[in-house]
Amino acid sequence: MSDLRATELLADFVVASQWTDIPQPVRHEGIRSMLNSVGCMLGGCHDEAMDLAIKVLGPCFGPAQAGVVGRRERPDALNAAFLNAVSANVLEYDDTHLPSVIHAAAPVLPAVLALAEMRGASGTAALHAFILGVEVECRIGNAVTPDHYRRGFHITATCGIFGAAAAAGKLLGLDRQRMAWALGHAATQSAGLVESLGSMSKSIGVGNAAKNGLAAALFAEAGFTAAERAIEGRYGFAAATSETVALDRMVQDFGVHWEVLANCHKPYPCGVVLFPVLDACLELHQRHRPAPERIERITVRGHPLLRERTDRPAPETGRTARVSLQHSVAVAFLHGAAGLAQYEDRCVADPAVHALRAKIAVEEDESVPVEAAIVTVRLSDGMTLFEHVRDGRGTPGRPMSDADLDAKVRELAAAAPFVDAAGLIAAIRGIEAEPDAGRIVRMTIPK
Amino acid sequence: MSDLRATELLADFVVASQWTDIPQPVRHEGIRSMLNSVGCMLGGCHDEAMDLAIKVLGPCFGPAQAGVVGRRERPDALNAAFLNAVSANVLEYDDTHLPSVIHAAAPVLPAVLALAEMRGASGTAALHAFILGVEVECRIGNAVTPDHYRRGFHITATCGIFGAAAAAGKLLGLDRQRMAWALGHAATQSAGLVESLGSMSKSIGVGNAAKNGLAAALFAEAGFTAAERAIEGRYGFAAATSETVALDRMVQDFGVHWEVLANCHKPYPCGVVLFPVLDACLELHQRHRPAPERIERITVRGHPLLRERTDRPAPETGRTARVSLQHSVAVAFLHGAAGLAQYEDRCVADPAVHALRAKIAVEEDESVPVEAAIVTVRLSDGMTLFEHVRDGRGTPGRPMSDADLDAKVRELAAAAPFVDAAGLIAAIRGIEAEPDAGRIVRMTIPK
Repeated sequence: MSDLRATELLADFVVASQWTDIPQPVRHEGIRSMLNSVGCMLGGCHDEAMDLAIKVLGPCFGPAQAGVVGRRERPDALNAAFLNAVSANVLEYDDTHLPSVIHAAAPVLPAVLALAEMRGASGTAALHAFILGVEVECRIGNAVTPDHYRRGFHITATCGIFGAAAAAGKLLGLDRQRMAWALGHAATQSAGLVESLGSMSKSIGVGNAAKNGLAAALFAEAGFTAAERAIEGRYGFAAATSETVALDRMVQDFGVHWEVLANCHKPYPCGVVLFPVLDACLELHQRHRPAPERIERITVRGHPLLRERTDRPAPETGRTARVSLQHSVAVAFLHGAAGLAQYEDRCVADPAVHALRAKIAVEEDESVPVEAAIVTVRLSDGMTLFEHVRDGRGTPGRPMSDADLDAKVRELAAAAPFVDAAGLIAAIRGIEAEPDAGRIVRMTIPK
Repeated sequence: MSDLRATELLADFVVASQWTDIPQPVRHEGIRSMLNSVGCMLGGCHDEAMDLAIKVLGPCFGPAQAGVVGRRERPDALNAAFLNAVSANVLEYDDTHLPSVIHAAAPVLPAVLALAEMRGASGTAALHAFILGVEVECRIGNAVTPDHYRRGFHITATCGIFGAAAAAGKLLGLDRQRMAWALGHAATQSAGLVESLGSMSKSIGVGNAAKNGLAAALFAEAGFTAAERAIEGRYGFAAATSETVALDRMVQDFGVHWEVLANCHKPYPCGVVLFPVLDACLELHQRHRPAPERIERITVRGHPLLRERTDRPAPETGRTARVSLQHSVAVAFLHGAAGLAQYEDRCVADPAVHALRAKIAVEEDESVPVEAAIVTVRLSDGMTLFEHVRDGRGTPGRPMSDADLDAKVRELAAAAPFVDAAGLIAAIRGIEAEPDAGRIVRMTIPK
């Protein structure tokens, strides 16, 4: 490895950062990421994985320290962080930091919220810690990508834990030495496998990232020592998990380049490579409304990654349908929508969906960028429909507007009808004026 | 990857195993490993890392479900498993499964004991589960070694979690599907870096292996699904963490070959490669008692691994002294002993130790096996002392006797003087007749 002291430099950056150093557009994107994530927690708070996790962990819950967004349970801070990370990510509807393909908020925000409730924190302090946590996890992700994920490491979990540790460490006011230890404790707990995607087990990895990242900061606060070069050392995180390590990407342009600006929000609760495909299909549906029985063949042309990640002709559950091109295209033409309802098990089992998805083909084309897609529909009367989307909605070239995002949060909040969605959105948008960040969580708890 | 369904085969083996399938010598070694581990928990229960971990985790402890060996705290089962794994391993005095270099008991036994207290288990059931857990972790370790450790994965933590999950799953009576899920949840939580060795952070990895392995089994029991091929899949544990995967070593000769028979117990609280060196030095000390000021030079000749792992001329703490050849040799000649007292910080700071360790040299010799060592001492009067040890005490060629092991446990139990060490040793040696395995833990708790 190089002599670059990445662990120390990351720690120094987080410790030295002042709120006044954070540019206005970065604050705004931080708030948008927070809002999207709290919305996803509400949408996912009654997922089966959440109910089961609470059944398993409930008997071991410690004292009531922090809330679970959208639910009545009030566990200790570590378990609260775990559960809010599960709900934030379980629907696959959360954010994506495109350069690293990390779902950035899910591991970080739950650690911030749990600590804000346990120890107290202003809205500004929480937002500042959150932005720094996102910065750290994404920089580490940028540096180990692409081999890290290709080897089998689920980067949201494995890098997310560093973000949780950095954010929690910032809120705890750790000094440089202790912040470096917090990153060291995160490194030695970093875990999560791509193989687990598509099963509930994925949620354990993401939940642990938040919980163990928070624990990492608490251990460091108490003086529990860690390796000084846990990230870049000969036997450290980077060397162990990637053959394509670019340490300089971890530590360059601090305070100039902000990773949260590359964080995208999903307009659809499915894999990000499907967005331009869905845009094209929904556009064709709205324009032509072809009856399903008239459709002979739907051909989707896209970047090879599209096929690699989403060519699943016969998913059996809502969970796998979220990464199935065939299911997504079929519901777009049958329902004219691709929202939460379209990825429920019930919709996946619908014979009409089965019939249509059998007519769908994927073609690889190196010349089509990953943000684009070309959809061709051949009808039984010989007619052909065609749509070419250059930038999918929710990709950097065409980000969701603030109004789109608020609408999405309202859709998600429907899973928790006791929540005053408008009030919650206003509170998060105004978090810089909020004296008590924990109030965000409490606003979501049923009376 | 091959088509071999390792996850499923491991699960099938654990589920199908009957107590009557376990040969007598395997039971005996299982008991010896259990005894050594409980001894190490007692010896380590007041280590600084334990006090700090309890300070950090204490505020999040759940209901009193399980004991911490040697201490008054009674946390929830998950935290108890974490803490007992920390104390079992923190002194570096625990067992070593030589083919994989896994400290086999530390991640597994705490999960068994915590579950025995929380749900109840006979001594035989606990011993059976423990033996199977050791079997699973060591087989997985054998299959990913040597690249796994060389990449930076601390194999005791990363493979230990599978052992904890398998053992806990066996006690819970999981069926084949759920046992495979338990292994899947273990895979996605597998973590721990070699870089963390020498700092307290190592203990977090080992503690998590026990705790998260237990959680893996509890999640599986509740029906939380996991990847079907979490270990051997394209993006699974083995491919992600090793380039030298030998899947067949994971699943061959079930019930014929038993890994616990290759588990060794340390006669000295330091790195295993130092054992023959210490045997030689202590023999020379006892025979000649050379005064330190008469010693001009001590030369240790050994396998290249000896130098690679232990050539540390100036350790500053007891923790690093445990992997320092120079410190170990110096105390052997100064104190005629290499026990717990010789690896305390105070002894490491002793100027007499500093003076002698400066006279010590290591020589690599490919022809010397790793179990052997040759020590030569040149005295100021021109005389030369010489000792050649072929099999260090505690290595497979010369295992510790039952009496040696009992004596070691009594030495360790001195850290918890309220414990009836003789009664505890008798209870573990007679565990097959014990109706309540949790009693082993309760015998170690101060009144």
